[in-house]
Amino acid sequence: MTTVKLWTDEEVSADARVRAIFDDIRSTRKSDFVNNFWRALANQPALLERTWASIKEVMMTPGTLDPLTKELIYIAVSTTNGCSYCVHSHTAAARAKGLTDQQHAEFLAVVGMAAETNALATALQIPVDREFSME
Amino acid sequence: MTTVKLWTDEEVSADARVRAIFDDIRSTRKSDFVNNFWRALANQPALLERTWASIKEVMMTPGTLDPLTKELIYIAVSTTNGCSYCVHSHTAAARAKGLTDQQHAEFLAVVGMAAETNALATALQIPVDREFSME
Amino acid sequence: MTTVKLWTDEEVSADARVRAIFDDIRSTRKSDFVNNFWRALANQPALLERTWASIKEVMMTPGTLDPLTKELIYIAVSTTNGCSYCVHSHTAAARAKGLTDQQHAEFLAVVGMAAETNALATALQIPVDREFSME
Amino acid sequence: MTTVKLWTDEEVSADARVRAIFDDIRSTRKSDFVNNFWRALANQPALLERTWASIKEVMMTPGTLDPLTKELIYIAVSTTNGCSYCVHSHTAAARAKGLTDQQHAEFLAVVGMAAETNALATALQIPVDREFSME
Amino acid sequence: MTTVKLWTDEEVSADARVRAIFDDIRSTRKSDFVNNFWRALANQPALLERTWASIKEVMMTPGTLDPLTKELIYIAVSTTNGCSYCVHSHTAAARAKGLTDQQHAEFLAVVGMAAETNALATALQIPVDREFSME
Amino acid sequence: MTTVKLWTDEEVSADARVRAIFDDIRSTRKSDFVNNFWRALANQPALLERTWASIKEVMMTPGTLDPLTKELIYIAVSTTNGCSYCVHSHTAAARAKGLTDQQHAEFLAVVGMAAETNALATALQIPVDREFSME
Repeated sequence: MTTVKLWTDEEVSADARVRAIFDDIRSTRKSDFVNNFWRALANQPALLERTWASIKEVMMTPGTLDPLTKELIYIAVSTTNGCSYCVHSHTAAARAKGLTDQQHAEFLAVVGMAAETNALATALQIPVDREFSME
Repeated sequence: MTTVKLWTDEEVSADARVRAIFDDIRSTRKSDFVNNFWRALANQPALLERTWASIKEVMMTPGTLDPLTKELIYIAVSTTNGCSYCVHSHTAAARAKGLTDQQHAEFLAVVGMAAETNALATALQIPVDREFSME
Repeated sequence: MTTVKLWTDEEVSADARVRAIFDDIRSTRKSDFVNNFWRALANQPALLERTWASIKEVMMTPGTLDPLTKELIYIAVSTTNGCSYCVHSHTAAARAKGLTDQQHAEFLAVVGMAAETNALATALQIPVDREFSME
Repeated sequence: MTTVKLWTDEEVSADARVRAIFDDIRSTRKSDFVNNFWRALANQPALLERTWASIKEVMMTPGTLDPLTKELIYIAVSTTNGCSYCVHSHTAAARAKGLTDQQHAEFLAVVGMAAETNALATALQIPVDREFSME
Repeated sequence: MTTVKLWTDEEVSADARVRAIFDDIRSTRKSDFVNNFWRALANQPALLERTWASIKEVMMTPGTLDPLTKELIYIAVSTTNGCSYCVHSHTAAARAKGLTDQQHAEFLAVVGMAAETNALATALQIPVDREFSME
Repeated sequence: MTTVKLWTDEEVSADARVRAIFDDIRSTRKSDFVNNFWRALANQPALLERTWASIKEVMMTPGTLDPLTKELIYIAVSTTNGCSYCVHSHTAAARAKGLTDQQHAEFLAVVGMAAETNALATALQIPVDREFSME
């Protein structure tokens, strides 16, 4: 189920503003497949444009973090937020960028360990050591 | 404030089981500094032992993800969980492992972007594309 | 799937305490439809009574916030908590109270923006400005 | 404490890119006060620019939701995410936009009620009623 | 810092509605100490009344779960939500109800373990076994 | 859907390391049924081993908290984290350990109440009373 309509290719074609974004998604990713996230955002063209522009800048602009590392960070956040859609889509994206089973196993171990120690630190209400501050 | 006592070095020295772990923390990290997380866990020696053993295995065993990538994943989880202590301690750890300001800036952009799209995907209740599944 | 039985209308009719609440839900909402949330809570009659009484007081008593604004606040919390059921039910409720597509689009933009800046503020561990306090 | 340096007005003045954003913040808000969120983001100029541009578009562009409603949605998300900084800054912003004590009381009641029923719906794993879907 | 005024005993005494609740808190708990949570809620008398009535019913009515177990459940939720105030106040309450250091250690181990496996189950998007459903 | 393959009994039998863990799960629980969580973790044998060892130590070692109380704490965390799989599996486990409908009803009331007051305490940014600290 979903709270908004998912746009079909026919509906996208009939709307110039949305079609322009979908065309850019397809050409940027070099793939005809456009996943449901964008088909849902098509109902909100301004949000669609801004979100796609940000994703392109943040995830696809070459920088100092490699694309696979960015995907792992993305999955870590998505897992912690319990976003089922995002875990699925970004795990698939990480695999497409070369994630190996061994890397996935190590990633899962870190995510699980972080969740556990987060819970412990919060339950213990541990004061931050002065050594950790930039102040 | 804290919900348990933080053990001083004197108290640690007086307890053989806890002292053994603290000695291993110090020698493994090649530093005399032991942060408050471990001083709080000292109240629960079995948990202290198991947590330290897991941290050593997960974060310090050489593998296919480099140590800095692991720290970034750790901070991503800690940020999403809102664990102030953990964000501080692992950002400091990442810096000690070479995190540059530019890498930090890119990391923050990914974490923010993921949080935003997580919220959108959840508010829209987008169904997972079949293309993303391993089933 | 569910962790408790969902009560059918027949089961509700056979239990005077639960039936009284369901009758009040139907007459208050002027609709025969009673959604699964209440059919699940029927297993815990005291909780059912208290929850329905609170919902009536909080969401249906005329006050200074209009009913649609209350629904938007409800969806914002539900989205952030990742409660799929609640996002669906309160988005439907908001639509029934007049939510337009344009309002929904602006709502989504605010929710996404808030999630993003929450993550940034937490990752940066920004100290609260004195100007923001009531103390 | 904080994980990055907070930029002083002197440091801002010495950096043309950051200064341009701070000047725009001050003129847009018609106030000389720039809060710590922006002083922390100054370390990441590209993120500072994109975040400020988004905030202006999402929160300050006239639309179908009034500015106070947007702030309430923002606080609802920030509360659920446990972002102390954001709760403080946006509650102050809501007050500056006219939030009354009575509105705040009603807002708190809705936020609390939503959190409670979110927990119940999740603990009960209630299936979404077909009546709530757009599919 | 706080987003609302904390009521002093003098202010409470001057408001009959709030004073009645504070008197009941004191007599029910057999203690003159009233913690800040209630002093903050005093700004919203209707919410104060409803919250105190619910707390009395849920936490203090004898039932099938003993008072200490209820406090542990409360701390588990508060820890996961990252509510610093609630972790502190309910850990103190649990201690007052007899929580031993050994019980606290076991509690922490369960909370940490649950957080870790929650993260793993979410990252792996594991389908629920039919054996676990009540349907 | 899932992000990894779920191992069948045939696949488990063909891998000595994984088979050893599954054998221990079956003999420890005195049941032939092995749920999907372990079939997913089978892809990461080191994580499978460590997770099972921790679960055995934390959840099955006799201590000062009884097994049902531990399950309730587990469900409380899982509910708050929105982990559907974990809520299902541990509610089933609690039932198997004797959870009554009345206990479940009281548990749900506490979890809901905690979620509500967590949200209130966070929205109000209430300072921790000195009386609650161990410092």
